[in-house]
Amino acid sequence: MSLVIVAPNKNNTAYWQQRLQEELKARGEEVKVEIWPEVENPDSVLMAVTWKHPEHSLYAYPHLKVVSSMGAGVDHIMKDEHLPLHWQIVRIVDAQLTRGMSNYLLAAALNYHKQMYHYYELQQSHSWGYSETPEVELQPGILGLGELGTDIALKLKGLGFKVSGYSRTPKEIMDIATFAGEDSLEEFLQQTNLLICLLPLTKDTRDFLNMEFFRKCKKGTYLINVARGSHLVEEDLITALDQGLLAGATLDVFRQEPLPKEHPFWDHPKVFITPHIASVTNPDAAIPQVADNYVRMLHAKPLLNKIDRTAGY
Amino acid sequence: MSLVIVAPNKNNTAYWQQRLQEELKARGEEVKVEIWPEVENPDSVLMAVTWKHPEHSLYAYPHLKVVSSMGAGVDHIMKDEHLPLHWQIVRIVDAQLTRGMSNYLLAAALNYHKQMYHYYELQQSHSWGYSETPEVELQPGILGLGELGTDIALKLKGLGFKVSGYSRTPKEIMDIATFAGEDSLEEFLQQTNLLICLLPLTKDTRDFLNMEFFRKCKKGTYLINVARGSHLVEEDLITALDQGLLAGATLDVFRQEPLPKEHPFWDHPKVFITPHIASVTNPDAAIPQVADNYVRMLHAKPLLNKIDRTAGY
Repeated sequence: MSLVIVAPNKNNTAYWQQRLQEELKARGEEVKVEIWPEVENPDSVLMAVTWKHPEHSLYAYPHLKVVSSMGAGVDHIMKDEHLPLHWQIVRIVDAQLTRGMSNYLLAAALNYHKQMYHYYELQQSHSWGYSETPEVELQPGILGLGELGTDIALKLKGLGFKVSGYSRTPKEIMDIATFAGEDSLEEFLQQTNLLICLLPLTKDTRDFLNMEFFRKCKKGTYLINVARGSHLVEEDLITALDQGLLAGATLDVFRQEPLPKEHPFWDHPKVFITPHIASVTNPDAAIPQVADNYVRMLHAKPLLNKIDRTAGY
Repeated sequence: MSLVIVAPNKNNTAYWQQRLQEELKARGEEVKVEIWPEVENPDSVLMAVTWKHPEHSLYAYPHLKVVSSMGAGVDHIMKDEHLPLHWQIVRIVDAQLTRGMSNYLLAAALNYHKQMYHYYELQQSHSWGYSETPEVELQPGILGLGELGTDIALKLKGLGFKVSGYSRTPKEIMDIATFAGEDSLEEFLQQTNLLICLLPLTKDTRDFLNMEFFRKCKKGTYLINVARGSHLVEEDLITALDQGLLAGATLDVFRQEPLPKEHPFWDHPKVFITPHIASVTNPDAAIPQVADNYVRMLHAKPLLNKIDRTAGY
């Protein structure tokens, strides 16, 4: 009976291995934890813990039942079109990840609200730029109302902003104007001038932020993308910024990461870049969840934070 | 019966004049509102509404009873050592001012927490700087626990930070560790690595942030000053930053404003400057409060937001 960690780009797999072994032992289970590609007996692998695993690498395990993401996102798992239907897919839900994400989003949103980039530029030329009206009044609109979207919506509301939210299926959140489905997208976009993208990445949301979408936004809208690079058609964002449809963008995720040296985003005066650090899953929060799910799998109990295979998230 | 506005540096005194006249009329009082120095009959002035009035200018009104600040601060009034004791001094309390201040402070604090200045710099050299530990864990300490200090303390607490507060007299705020008086300053400073100065400016707090103070801080503390420039000994801050005692400073207020072109702060790599815009009093919130106090004065009722002449705030 074993578990395999398949995450060739992560530099902390040895830590995961050791801590998972301990957590499973503490739950009374003798489970061998191995790191791909060094797997002694592929037949005994029941669970794979993955982050951007190499294509087809999971097909080596004939008795695989559960694939767990090492973080909150599962798009790196779901993108496989031939994913066996009997595999159960689970993800990590981490309160610290939610806090980290909301703190990043508050910084990004409030920097626009209080015009911090403007003052940073003024400082370079020793310019004092006093104004009696130093604030840009923001109406935040949250794309995606899961754990993360709901948390930032409520926090922005608590700071005195009028907040709207958009999701695929209808949601009710106290004091937040919510909109669901494509038919209400235009109405939602008319309520907002600061878009925060926290959508899951599925075949329906890939390329969601494109030119057609930007044309429906209020002129001067700001965009913050902390979901996935593939939500955004990057050349369309540059056109929308250059045409003045959008006023600025804060981007933490990109179609190719690290962002290539020659990418036009780096030097664009209206783009602020961070290197996919908005929020990082804490292994110490994630590892006990993986161990719990291993035990649940063994005893045929319902898994925690299981993905809906039809919705894709 | 009249009221004089003494604010030669403000460019919106005509608006104050018109709106004050309207608000007083709506309260059934026929009061002449004049703008210094054009005062027809100094004998009839009962109240002065001021912002940085010229020295001695208020002594021209023998029947003056009340001096109202046009904003939250009264240091520009209290600095007069010969202020007649029978004058009542009042200030403005504005919920929007509190919100604006807290939003500025959250932006400034979270920019340090999420290392936004670091990523801004990396972007200039097209450098991707991914890290598994992108956050600086902050323990905010609030200097001054009045309206503004209490609001930001609770908001930072709500975002998951461990918050401490320091004030002259003991205060109790839920879930905030509070310290009072000089004897507990060192203990307070050991709880914090992000100082937010919201002290009132009095003879006791002038030059409060000096070299002796910085030596008591934890190494690598960040400073945010949004109170008054005179709280800070500016050359001591530069020394503390250069010696690594402090890690960075966000400054909205300065001993001389506008900050002189040749001031060393402008080019200091660890100083971020904003031009006294952290929060601006909204005249539409302030003017009804001034009118209310005029009516209260006429009917010998207790004034709103009156300053304690002994404490100086």
